[in-house]
Amino acid sequence: MAKELTSREENYSQWYNDLVVKADLAENSAVRGCMVIKPYGYAIWEKMHDVLDRMFKQTGHQNAYFPLFIPKSFLSREAEHVEGFAKECAVVTHHRLMNDPNGEGVVVDPSAKLEEELIVRPTSETIIWNTYKNWITSWRDLPILVNQWANVVRWEMRTRLFLRTAEFLWQEGHTAHATAAEAIEEATKMVNVYADFARNYMAVPVIVGHKSESERFAGAIDTLCIEAMMQDGKALQAGTSHFLGQNFDKAFDVQFANKEGNLEYVWATSWGVSTRLMGALIMAHSDNNGLVLPPKLAPIHVVMVPIFKTEEEHNAIVAKMEEMKKEIEAKGYTVKIDDRDNLRPGFKFAEWELKGVPSRIAIGPRDLAAGTLELARRDTLTKETVEEAGIGEKIAALMDEIQENIYKKAFDFRESHTIKVDTWEEFKEKIEQGYFLLCHWDGTAETEAKIQEETKATIRCIPTDSFVVEEEGKCVYSGRPSSRRVVFAKAY
Amino acid sequence: MAKELTSREENYSQWYNDLVVKADLAENSAVRGCMVIKPYGYAIWEKMHDVLDRMFKQTGHQNAYFPLFIPKSFLSREAEHVEGFAKECAVVTHHRLMNDPNGEGVVVDPSAKLEEELIVRPTSETIIWNTYKNWITSWRDLPILVNQWANVVRWEMRTRLFLRTAEFLWQEGHTAHATAAEAIEEATKMVNVYADFARNYMAVPVIVGHKSESERFAGAIDTLCIEAMMQDGKALQAGTSHFLGQNFDKAFDVQFANKEGNLEYVWATSWGVSTRLMGALIMAHSDNNGLVLPPKLAPIHVVMVPIFKTEEEHNAIVAKMEEMKKEIEAKGYTVKIDDRDNLRPGFKFAEWELKGVPSRIAIGPRDLAAGTLELARRDTLTKETVEEAGIGEKIAALMDEIQENIYKKAFDFRESHTIKVDTWEEFKEKIEQGYFLLCHWDGTAETEAKIQEETKATIRCIPTDSFVVEEEGKCVYSGRPSSRRVVFAKAY
Repeated sequence: MAKELTSREENYSQWYNDLVVKADLAENSAVRGCMVIKPYGYAIWEKMHDVLDRMFKQTGHQNAYFPLFIPKSFLSREAEHVEGFAKECAVVTHHRLMNDPNGEGVVVDPSAKLEEELIVRPTSETIIWNTYKNWITSWRDLPILVNQWANVVRWEMRTRLFLRTAEFLWQEGHTAHATAAEAIEEATKMVNVYADFARNYMAVPVIVGHKSESERFAGAIDTLCIEAMMQDGKALQAGTSHFLGQNFDKAFDVQFANKEGNLEYVWATSWGVSTRLMGALIMAHSDNNGLVLPPKLAPIHVVMVPIFKTEEEHNAIVAKMEEMKKEIEAKGYTVKIDDRDNLRPGFKFAEWELKGVPSRIAIGPRDLAAGTLELARRDTLTKETVEEAGIGEKIAALMDEIQENIYKKAFDFRESHTIKVDTWEEFKEKIEQGYFLLCHWDGTAETEAKIQEETKATIRCIPTDSFVVEEEGKCVYSGRPSSRRVVFAKAY
Repeated sequence: MAKELTSREENYSQWYNDLVVKADLAENSAVRGCMVIKPYGYAIWEKMHDVLDRMFKQTGHQNAYFPLFIPKSFLSREAEHVEGFAKECAVVTHHRLMNDPNGEGVVVDPSAKLEEELIVRPTSETIIWNTYKNWITSWRDLPILVNQWANVVRWEMRTRLFLRTAEFLWQEGHTAHATAAEAIEEATKMVNVYADFARNYMAVPVIVGHKSESERFAGAIDTLCIEAMMQDGKALQAGTSHFLGQNFDKAFDVQFANKEGNLEYVWATSWGVSTRLMGALIMAHSDNNGLVLPPKLAPIHVVMVPIFKTEEEHNAIVAKMEEMKKEIEAKGYTVKIDDRDNLRPGFKFAEWELKGVPSRIAIGPRDLAAGTLELARRDTLTKETVEEAGIGEKIAALMDEIQENIYKKAFDFRESHTIKVDTWEEFKEKIEQGYFLLCHWDGTAETEAKIQEETKATIRCIPTDSFVVEEEGKCVYSGRPSSRRVVFAKAY
């Protein structure tokens, strides 16, 4: 190995942290809870950004940008929202530093105190609805379908790279509609966009469903989500889409004249995914050799490593590689020739495995003479000798195969770790073993809270498109009647 | 006119503000000095982003992301930098709000005071060099060629949409090199990337040059810049690229082992452009009818307005437009059919003129019968009847022509407003009339300061690729000897 990773079996949590740092994805910064996203990690995030941005535009959305700061008083306007978001946040109180009169450096200038404190946005509903107030007067102004790519800050006490950081990058869609039905349709459409992205690009199978009332976004009437299973059997909420009803537009007094000329409040949604998706991507697929990336999000698809003894061999092999690189790139894939002169091939192999490059081509003098190459794939860690002819098409086919295989592996894992449980004893046992439990629940927040207290498991969602089991049964905890199963799991 | 604009002649400054707001580019927010970038304005910024990002990648750079917050002590590390940047800034002092014990709403929790205040980044040299310290050990780690797209905050007292806002969006490149020569080459390369972008995409002619010492970036050894002329003859600094020498790496102790194994400090650059480019774009080309956009940055290239009386005519015309839209889009241009049923064609014409869409197609029943259309161009406000056949190619040719014409117009304007001036009397007279003045200067900061005091004019740059005049002469102010002319102007 290029750099030693802790194994998953030894310490899953340490394995994750090691992987993020050693694969050059991100690292902790000098600022508590804030990460540095390194170029290789950022390149993956850029790919996610580009695909999602295209999907949002295809569904009729436009991007805009709203202020980083939110006046403190805005947060109090929506009662539940302030409870959920106004607590642990970064508060700007002053707008100037001055030279320290007692010595070196700078200190806060006490005369530059803001009249009203500003909060670094933890989410932008309040500032956006305060803006929409001026954008909306008539039904002709609706719908407003706007998305923002931005950084947000939530002062988390315990942080983990990508999964929970004080500052993170995300997108937040904020839409306004004339009818409740249209807003609900929008919220549903967007959670399905997220599911499509997770399944078909991240190769992560997800369950789409509704959150229970206690797990809803602060200020929402309904929260839809996608939930993914990590390799330790824990759930990760990878995206949410909220039907906000009229809570925010009433708080900011946003009304429109309908076709009959009467004033009505609008109906709202918001929806978001964040750099947390990076955590999901890493934990869903990677192994003890490092990162495993689905080709659709990999910054580099093929790494080429020349194997040689003489300068002459080196030059001939690299020339051949340049030729093949062009052929593969013409198919739309990215190739890197690793021609570093100070590292052995085995070291390079391990390093690119660590970084999750989906495939590797090695060529030695004998391959060159025979017109062959060694083609290795990252997902299965297998390799074979293939003819060089038609390498572009071979790589294209291999990328499709890897994309599919990674998804299938994650899907099979989730299938084998999702079970119906009907007794409280079995619940307690299986939840410790890392399963998604399909259980009857009596629908009360009390039961939900007690289950969480006793086992740390929460209701991940009431599923709508996978594991939907509508049947009469009895709550696994209280024994009271229930009409469908929900998904319980421990979660990140 | 759809929405009344103040004319340039009446009040240039008000014209600009009206235009930004009425063309739906941006607006002031509820947060002092922070703007909302509206979807149409953001779409232009996205185009700028995409082109620049591609240019950065083509020149070998990668993106990354560094924290929003900078520990207060970091700003004091580089002596000049703290003078330049640590003063008017947003200071985070607390990390929690709590319910107001005396009533409604929330207040800052005094128990959640940060040990060290955090500054919302005004620029990221300090946090980045503190990070690079861990990335650089050997010459093999160099160069580091990293760029960041981010928001930054500078607590400006007097703000104007896009030109000077408390929060703005920008990119900042930060590179590390083994030699001074390589860093200087990088700083030069990047200012030329900016010049290329300004000239060939924004259609804005710019002067490339060095800043005088007093106008340098705080902490730089040399600042290169691009300077553009606005329609009032004032200059706008549109981008800067700095050779930082070893100031920041010494402040953060970043050394590398060279090939001989000896420790050396690295050599640094930083370079950036911001949403200020939007201001330059608007002010360089627009007129009293509204925005004029160069096709290469226009979100919509062609707007189509149907002109009809009957439902039947309407349907036939819109069907034809849909057909033409496909043909034009196949050439890579964006088309919008404005089929709103509550507005007259004249109103629509004015609205799309205001928004700067480069060309407009109107079709009435007679055009439809004759296979013709009315094609109007925004830059010249002219229109002609053309055959519908080959519309895709016609639009493609027209877009090239408009792009070129807009550039030429701005170029000619600058040429006619740039003059050599050799006497102080003429200097004072011409600077008031809105000229770039090519003058001899004695090279001292004193003279520069006095000229600024008396006329508000500053040295925009010591040009390196336009208006380069190397000749012996006498300083326009002090009469002392000088070996080349520099550019003086009033500036935004």
